[in-house]
Amino acid sequence: MTHQSYLALSGGVGGAKLVLGLEAQLRAGQLQVIANTGDDFEHLGLPISPDIDTLLYTLAGCANPATGWGVRDETWSFMERLSDLGGPTWFRLGDRDLAMHMRRRELRGTHSLTETTEILARALGVATQVLPMSDDPAPTVIHTTAGRLAFQDYFVRRQAEPAVTNITYPPDVAAGLGAMDALSDPSLAAIIITPSNPWLSIAPILSIQAIKSSILKSTAPVIGVSPLIGGQAVKGPTAKIMRELGLAQDTLAIAQHYAGLLDGLVIDAQDAAQTTAIKRLGIEVRVTNTLMRKLEDKTRVADAVLSLARELAPQATHG
Amino acid sequence: MTHQSYLALSGGVGGAKLVLGLEAQLRAGQLQVIANTGDDFEHLGLPISPDIDTLLYTLAGCANPATGWGVRDETWSFMERLSDLGGPTWFRLGDRDLAMHMRRRELRGTHSLTETTEILARALGVATQVLPMSDDPAPTVIHTTAGRLAFQDYFVRRQAEPAVTNITYPPDVAAGLGAMDALSDPSLAAIIITPSNPWLSIAPILSIQAIKSSILKSTAPVIGVSPLIGGQAVKGPTAKIMRELGLAQDTLAIAQHYAGLLDGLVIDAQDAAQTTAIKRLGIEVRVTNTLMRKLEDKTRVADAVLSLARELAPQATHG
Repeated sequence: MTHQSYLALSGGVGGAKLVLGLEAQLRAGQLQVIANTGDDFEHLGLPISPDIDTLLYTLAGCANPATGWGVRDETWSFMERLSDLGGPTWFRLGDRDLAMHMRRRELRGTHSLTETTEILARALGVATQVLPMSDDPAPTVIHTTAGRLAFQDYFVRRQAEPAVTNITYPPDVAAGLGAMDALSDPSLAAIIITPSNPWLSIAPILSIQAIKSSILKSTAPVIGVSPLIGGQAVKGPTAKIMRELGLAQDTLAIAQHYAGLLDGLVIDAQDAAQTTAIKRLGIEVRVTNTLMRKLEDKTRVADAVLSLARELAPQATHG
Repeated sequence: MTHQSYLALSGGVGGAKLVLGLEAQLRAGQLQVIANTGDDFEHLGLPISPDIDTLLYTLAGCANPATGWGVRDETWSFMERLSDLGGPTWFRLGDRDLAMHMRRRELRGTHSLTETTEILARALGVATQVLPMSDDPAPTVIHTTAGRLAFQDYFVRRQAEPAVTNITYPPDVAAGLGAMDALSDPSLAAIIITPSNPWLSIAPILSIQAIKSSILKSTAPVIGVSPLIGGQAVKGPTAKIMRELGLAQDTLAIAQHYAGLLDGLVIDAQDAAQTTAIKRLGIEVRVTNTLMRKLEDKTRVADAVLSLARELAPQATHG
């Protein structure tokens, strides 16, 4: 069998779980990930890339499982002292996590975000390539009943509290060089839309025209995993945002959102009743338990994705 | 007795010890300190003011007594991680210390260094005013047999190893506003040259013309404390630099260096034999044990300074 490569689109925690499962099921170097950078912002003079870091920490095995962000065995001396000195504490930066942002700041002086991420990944021993969707700033803007908010202002400072009326992504953003290379890889066997928040994490990636049209043109099947289980998000405000945007909060609405892009969708057993309606959109369905707690859960969902991809491949090589 | 104020010129650890002793012997608000900022530099994008911080930490009671810099009960998670990520580790930044530089960076966006230092001092509960010698950068340059070096490159990265051939201070530096206010205070009862390194820590302050001429014009007595005891520095490269500059390594050479500026000098009992030679320079001498380990040592040296200042005051009010 010739070399096959797999490309995942991911935001933070939900996407990172599936990416970890995929990495476990594939050979080294087979998997690449395009990471959302629409959440990136500058804080305390440091360039923060929350989704890139969650991916790197998860793949390095040092992610904090309790929070979904930051590293485990973290210490908080910096933050405590910053608070004593009257500094801002709404965005929590652990002592070890801080080194990541500081090193990124240093590298950014002479390197693109793609190169910087590669250097950090290597230092952390991460084999899977994590590719920023863009090397340029592309901040997602959240329009809410409390006004237009920068992403972290909405998501962290206000705890995703204000009702979302619209979400906009800057136009004319150039795709990251590594991301475009990955998308044009002729050995691409599947493009995987991880169960990160479709509006907050995946839409920013798809808002980049070059990425979107490469995916639409690709002969590789595009396989998604629904972020909803029984109408609820495992973590984060996906269902809340769908309600605020006037959508049904179920997996069918997720399928409708991705219709035209997806060839297949992995959904949870709790949502099996929506299978027929989803298939009517031209999307093949695979049902499994999609809740990812342990590594075996992550590899199970990854297996569902990979087997659906093989099934939908233009020239399936069975047996 | 009318209000009397005291003004000390100080670098880091040696000066800070005397300042702590002076603070203990004076009433709240009586003492002000002009701090050397010739060592200041930017590192990892952060504005570092080593001498200001040593003064603030010492006066706040949180200085690290083992190192002479940084805070006690420090943690090192950031530095360890930065090292793992390939970042620079030659300048050690503890997790708690880091908050100070980060907060300074934030405040510097809208405040002068003098205002920033006042805000940090208040947050740390420091009553004594610590006044930067200048609000503008004024980097000391160390000329060595290994070439021209920035201060921290010489002092920390190279551990003061290269032989010093000359030390230069930038010309036309404006004095800090608080520093000039303190020098023109009509209630000034003494100007105290602390036993910080005369070339590395005190000379940068005196290189600012407005400060130097204010001191020379002041009617308040100028009292120094020799940084040498028996020809040796308590800490740091003072004696080494004196040798490299072709000077004798003794308290008389210190007195000669400060001749024309000092009215009085406190020297150690080990150097009592040099009393007559120092007096011949027109400098009154007070002999005591100048080694400052415990608080009682610091207050003893402070007492010697203050009593010599009273003795040399234009209208001494004895009894």
